[in-house]
Amino acid sequence: MRYELYYQPSIQGRGEFIRLALEEAGADYIDVARDPTFGRPGIMKVLEDPALEHPPFAPPFLKAGELLISQTANILQFLAPRLGLVPEKEESRLWAHQLQLTIADWLYETGQTHHPVANVLYYEEQKDEAKKRAAHFTSTRIPKFLSYFERILKLNAKSGDFIFGEDVSYVDLSLFQMIEGLRYAFPKTMAQVEPQHPKAVLLHDRVMARPRIAAYLASPRRLAFNEQGIFRHYPELEEAQGQNR
Amino acid sequence: MRYELYYQPSIQGRGEFIRLALEEAGADYIDVARDPTFGRPGIMKVLEDPALEHPPFAPPFLKAGELLISQTANILQFLAPRLGLVPEKEESRLWAHQLQLTIADWLYETGQTHHPVANVLYYEEQKDEAKKRAAHFTSTRIPKFLSYFERILKLNAKSGDFIFGEDVSYVDLSLFQMIEGLRYAFPKTMAQVEPQHPKAVLLHDRVMARPRIAAYLASPRRLAFNEQGIFRHYPELEEAQGQNR
Repeated sequence: MRYELYYQPSIQGRGEFIRLALEEAGADYIDVARDPTFGRPGIMKVLEDPALEHPPFAPPFLKAGELLISQTANILQFLAPRLGLVPEKEESRLWAHQLQLTIADWLYETGQTHHPVANVLYYEEQKDEAKKRAAHFTSTRIPKFLSYFERILKLNAKSGDFIFGEDVSYVDLSLFQMIEGLRYAFPKTMAQVEPQHPKAVLLHDRVMARPRIAAYLASPRRLAFNEQGIFRHYPELEEAQGQNR
Repeated sequence: MRYELYYQPSIQGRGEFIRLALEEAGADYIDVARDPTFGRPGIMKVLEDPALEHPPFAPPFLKAGELLISQTANILQFLAPRLGLVPEKEESRLWAHQLQLTIADWLYETGQTHHPVANVLYYEEQKDEAKKRAAHFTSTRIPKFLSYFERILKLNAKSGDFIFGEDVSYVDLSLFQMIEGLRYAFPKTMAQVEPQHPKAVLLHDRVMARPRIAAYLASPRRLAFNEQGIFRHYPELEEAQGQNR
């Protein structure tokens, strides 16, 4: 099965969480909007196709044979058993998905730090509000989410480095990406809080060292972080940080 | 199986989407925090229990036998096949879940209208930012989400009133709740936009008229909307509405 991933071609964004799963599994996939030879209709054309039975609300979406699936966590939930990235038991899948949805909330809040008023406005038009929101995000939300995952990893202390112990899951790949992105966007905050969350940092490093992930990160398929994505580095958003601690 | 729902006792909030599914199915369940005779540990005590293998990040969460499940859409995905509220095919379940996650995004954005800076601050401390955010939400986001669901319901025009045609699903119940909540929070906006979304309004009315839902809505089990929940009526948040149209 060749999977077709539809996502914006110039940012990591939500699509990156799916790319990481496909890469770790060595899956046959095509990143449609970044492949000039592919010749399929673009993202907007698909979204607006009136004949579409299951139209996505927004990218990313995945074509898997006849299926068209959207919502990042939903795509990952669909892919994971097929790619060997989640245990088979229903209980484990529910647990993985619950964690993935918590990561989705965390990611959403991350994007809100530079767009607290409206996504259709430029950052520069909502910079004052962004400073206020980012101060709270860095002082309370990042530590809260990181501590939550640290607690879960500690529960697994005896069985391995990952959420499910020895075997990597799609949730681990997503947690790696959150830490990567937050280091880019809020380096001062992360330098402060990481020492209190050693299990999460270790998980990040273990994911990064996996052969397929390492090869992917070194390849041109991995886009650089930038100020059009969800994780953006605006130094002024960390300036007010101390005020809310 | 008696399900145990853990959620805040004084608001509809995210828990209401689960209550509606349990009520429509006539399921045996207990709303733990609202039942003084139940005598189980409270929500915070459960969340902080260090022995918990799968700790929720936040309420709502559901106990189903030995399982403890959190994240609203995840709980609904678990319950729906057991309660007969989703078709059996994998394709249909993925589609239902995708729509439910889109409703979750919509609900999250709704809550951000009164808390655009930080959930830990009072509304009154972020009223100026709330006015700006609400103006965009009412002028662009409500119509965008409503139009999306209207489009999907039109695709089903021949087969019935609901997302999957004749049989009600948990997604229909959630869409009913979104419309109910938005009517409470933003009555002027909804009065303006509803006429352009007749299928969504019809779905709302059909859900409301279902015997078990009607009985539930008339019962003391249904909490009233209020200004501690996600859907809050602050008239000033609709005042600036015209500016962004």
